[in-house]
Amino acid sequence: MSESSKPNEPTVVWHEHSVQRTDRQQLNGHLGCVVWFTGLSGCGKSTVANQVDQQLHQLGVRSYVLDGDNIRHGLNATPQMLAQHYGEDFSKRFGLGFSQQDREENIRRVGAVAGLLCDAGIVTLTAFVSPYRADRDAVRANLPTGDFLEIFVDAPLEVCESRDPKGLYKQARAGKIKDFTGIDAPYEPPEQAELRLDASGETPKELADRVVKMLVEAGKVPAGKLS
Amino acid sequence: MSESSKPNEPTVVWHEHSVQRTDRQQLNGHLGCVVWFTGLSGCGKSTVANQVDQQLHQLGVRSYVLDGDNIRHGLNATPQMLAQHYGEDFSKRFGLGFSQQDREENIRRVGAVAGLLCDAGIVTLTAFVSPYRADRDAVRANLPTGDFLEIFVDAPLEVCESRDPKGLYKQARAGKIKDFTGIDAPYEPPEQAELRLDASGETPKELADRVVKMLVEAGKVPAGKLS
Repeated sequence: MSESSKPNEPTVVWHEHSVQRTDRQQLNGHLGCVVWFTGLSGCGKSTVANQVDQQLHQLGVRSYVLDGDNIRHGLNATPQMLAQHYGEDFSKRFGLGFSQQDREENIRRVGAVAGLLCDAGIVTLTAFVSPYRADRDAVRANLPTGDFLEIFVDAPLEVCESRDPKGLYKQARAGKIKDFTGIDAPYEPPEQAELRLDASGETPKELADRVVKMLVEAGKVPAGKLS
Repeated sequence: MSESSKPNEPTVVWHEHSVQRTDRQQLNGHLGCVVWFTGLSGCGKSTVANQVDQQLHQLGVRSYVLDGDNIRHGLNATPQMLAQHYGEDFSKRFGLGFSQQDREENIRRVGAVAGLLCDAGIVTLTAFVSPYRADRDAVRANLPTGDFLEIFVDAPLEVCESRDPKGLYKQARAGKIKDFTGIDAPYEPPEQAELRLDASGETPKELADRVVKMLVEAGKVPAGKLS
């Protein structure tokens, strides 16, 4: 392609000078990665993820939490939510409910977004029940090797149900919510998680300490505060 | 809810201490925002976005480009791509093609992801044809006021077609690609874009300078290099 053959064009080279992930990580002083919290509703995923987010922020590390609050109201809205802005036909096709297939797509999209945030240089903390092993393994497989760190937030069902912070177990027991993980839908614990947290035996602060320690040991973030 | 009534639980307060967007922006020394490039295929959106990305990076600003390369291979994969890993039924339902409805969902999801990156504190540069005004306006409406900056990368169809960097116009003219914007699908230019770039009259470097200047004037990023 000769530029001189196009008199209306400025003499420009239209190739890309992309900023690379390594450049962004150098600017940040730490690596990007995906820290994937999985466990039953009420086990403390979101609480621990937010505690880790705080600790990382205080270290000068760029981190971000993806959870139901910022995913299910936007990217992965339910058909009911989408129907408020889009046609019913559209919202039925693209909205996500809680069937196994819809959960699979929910986790696939979250994994893809986490991968983008990670590529942007951010320590991305995801807090989703993500009950199916195959779905989590697919997220891992779709990310560059070493980027995915799976954390099993392990607490007995009885403990989670007794906490029931959103009253969901009560509704599930009453049959008002179907396909509820731990009640009438399965939870498949990780077989080779990078970290297992005893979420009924330690405080969120202690659990978060363990996660940050793991990130330091994995070389993702520096041990001390960034200048 | 009394903690003392749950002897198996550590004495913890399970509320959230979330890091706020303002905290992240303070750490970064600049604001997050969504810089939305729109225009015909071949107009230079991606080239200019990457040039802006480079300039911002050199200023110490955290930025990231979302484009077809990192969106259409992951989050918004086509049915054909999804079918390689997932069932056919699944990929048909969740894969995105190029019909008007699929483009609408493509842009909706990109808008949601851009919003998350923006909330994470990143100057997010999106480079998508995004031909429908209503779709772009919906992205704007779903973001906090002032976060969405629309940039019309304006070049005549003849110029874009003569560039044809990916040979797509040739294929569209030969009828091998259907619904191709500018050929047999409409492009609706913005009516109130924050910036219009004359993409057939200036170099990518000059165009990127204008965008960075706009970001400085809008108070999104500092004028000088961050320490």
